[in-house]
Amino acid sequence: MRDGKPRTRAELIQLTGLARSTVGARVDALLGTGLLAPSGEAASTGGRPPARFAFNPDARVVIGADLGATHAIVALTDLSGRVIAERAEPLDITLGPKPVLDRVVRTAKALLRSAGRRQDELAGVGIGLPGPVEHSSGRPALPPIMPGWDDFDVPGHVSSRLGGCPVLVDNDVNIMALGEHATIYPEVDHLMFVKVATGIGAGIISDGRLTRGAQGSAGDLGHVAAPHGGDVRCTCGNVGCLEAVASGPAIVRSLAAQSVDAGDSRGLISLAKSGDTVATAAIRDAGREIGEVLATCVSLLNPSVIVVGGILAQAAESLLAGIREVVYRRSLPLATGDLQIVAARTGDHAGVIGAATMVIQHALSAEQVELALTSSA
Amino acid sequence: MRDGKPRTRAELIQLTGLARSTVGARVDALLGTGLLAPSGEAASTGGRPPARFAFNPDARVVIGADLGATHAIVALTDLSGRVIAERAEPLDITLGPKPVLDRVVRTAKALLRSAGRRQDELAGVGIGLPGPVEHSSGRPALPPIMPGWDDFDVPGHVSSRLGGCPVLVDNDVNIMALGEHATIYPEVDHLMFVKVATGIGAGIISDGRLTRGAQGSAGDLGHVAAPHGGDVRCTCGNVGCLEAVASGPAIVRSLAAQSVDAGDSRGLISLAKSGDTVATAAIRDAGREIGEVLATCVSLLNPSVIVVGGILAQAAESLLAGIREVVYRRSLPLATGDLQIVAARTGDHAGVIGAATMVIQHALSAEQVELALTSSA
Repeated sequence: MRDGKPRTRAELIQLTGLARSTVGARVDALLGTGLLAPSGEAASTGGRPPARFAFNPDARVVIGADLGATHAIVALTDLSGRVIAERAEPLDITLGPKPVLDRVVRTAKALLRSAGRRQDELAGVGIGLPGPVEHSSGRPALPPIMPGWDDFDVPGHVSSRLGGCPVLVDNDVNIMALGEHATIYPEVDHLMFVKVATGIGAGIISDGRLTRGAQGSAGDLGHVAAPHGGDVRCTCGNVGCLEAVASGPAIVRSLAAQSVDAGDSRGLISLAKSGDTVATAAIRDAGREIGEVLATCVSLLNPSVIVVGGILAQAAESLLAGIREVVYRRSLPLATGDLQIVAARTGDHAGVIGAATMVIQHALSAEQVELALTSSA
Repeated sequence: MRDGKPRTRAELIQLTGLARSTVGARVDALLGTGLLAPSGEAASTGGRPPARFAFNPDARVVIGADLGATHAIVALTDLSGRVIAERAEPLDITLGPKPVLDRVVRTAKALLRSAGRRQDELAGVGIGLPGPVEHSSGRPALPPIMPGWDDFDVPGHVSSRLGGCPVLVDNDVNIMALGEHATIYPEVDHLMFVKVATGIGAGIISDGRLTRGAQGSAGDLGHVAAPHGGDVRCTCGNVGCLEAVASGPAIVRSLAAQSVDAGDSRGLISLAKSGDTVATAAIRDAGREIGEVLATCVSLLNPSVIVVGGILAQAAESLLAGIREVVYRRSLPLATGDLQIVAARTGDHAGVIGAATMVIQHALSAEQVELALTSSA
């Protein structure tokens, strides 16, 4: 029913092959939860016209939260992922899990109140964090820029403060990949979302689904060896990592070595936007290094779209030029013939929409609907 | 029912929620096709004991064919992938598609005859080819070592000679990945199979399923830039490709430059097995180059098993030593903590078992069973 098309009980019996009694009981239960709602009447076939029902995205609401190093965006959406209300605020992730998550909970409650929705209408909370997360448990795994967060029970802490609703957690890049895919490329089966900011990472959509790998670390491109990484020391302790030569801070350092003081990544973007040729050349060089690594990814995964996001994508022209130059030169024609390399379009919203999408996909999965029906029966 | 466990009609009604009439009609239809067979009687609940049915892997047979540059292996299997009969023979792929495929068809018919099975019991044919294939159409796509095969309608040619049965085609590496996964690692969700031979390529199992990418070229690692590839010219026209420095022929060339004449890949393996230190060192160096590329793959995909196959895996000790050395040094601890890097174990059989597995997965997919039931109704 998720396509939103209204159907009658008879149509559902024919479509599913389920028994009349089963369909009747499920429709009643779903009407009870509000996930289905009456939707006009079908054309009469003689006698009383059979009622039609349609998926009702307004039945429940979802909270999506996107936490960065220094900010939080929290959004309230319906079950189709449409944003009802949103709030962005500065928030220092290094304050530790309890103060940060309590703040997210307060914002979530304020958004619910402002939209006139009750807490028991909340289908779940999705949270994106700026570091590695074990998705199955929702616990951060040795996150480098999040002191005090390692192995913290994020779902437990948040759920207990929001009426026990489901809480799902993933890293910010996977969340952005889900958001960009759901919003702009729902028909694309093979997509890579690459974030270029303080760190560098990727979210991989393969056969239409986010792939996380065995330990959930899939897409962790920041510490792959860059072709010209040489012996540049990386924060991870290794040398020559992609992040050490092509992240925002790495480009700022390379400019400093040429006596150009960009300050930080935002300063670098401002310089590039003002047309500074040293800055744009440095960003393009970083794009080339990222392109070398992405060329291998293209050979390995054969995506049809690579989306480049993160703060550096605000200098998209220079960054994409470097990436495209190398990927198109280095990959086989079969893999690049239909390959698009584009800048992210959902901007600051990709994270919260993706976090909400993660919860919606979970809440409306066959298993979860079954569970809800069983427990409400 | 594919788990092989016998069930009654009443159990199926309860498990599926389908109407009694639907279950009855489907069980009758499946009994008619032979895919289900009676399997003992359930414990009496008073009155006539209800009959039990189980999946019958012997109901149909499958042909798996693995074609290399100079050989063909053709096997007859049941619907569980068990090999009933197999034949290996020299076959020159450069003879072109019609002579080669007609020979495969003759061998398939001979295997059917020898096993006393009829052509109408054939559920389908799976074929692995030593070059890129567009899986959706089954047509080779500019295969470098297969003159005359480009865009040839392999399924059409074979199907018309075997009673119109389904014919599925893929490249040899994907087929080997399916075979090794089905046979040795059925419980592993994230696996990479890497073939090191005349060419270098990978088959990727992600979330339990083979992933082919947008154009079916996923896993094409042979022409990725090798870190020490420099300006070594590759057969593809580019320079510094992995195949140009780490394939069998590349290692043979590097030995020749050190005045050691290995002849070909088989000669190289013999030298290594005899303990020749120049040969083992060259193979280990090739392993290191492959390891650099695989380290990027590990960061990107986070597999829990990497299987190394192809003729060079016969010198597994040296090859794996080089690969492991680099992958474990270069990848993040989270991704390599539980990562196994092992030699292929199905050996020459992986290809035919994988080709048969591809057909079995297709034939027993919900859609295909539905189609068969509809057309037999």
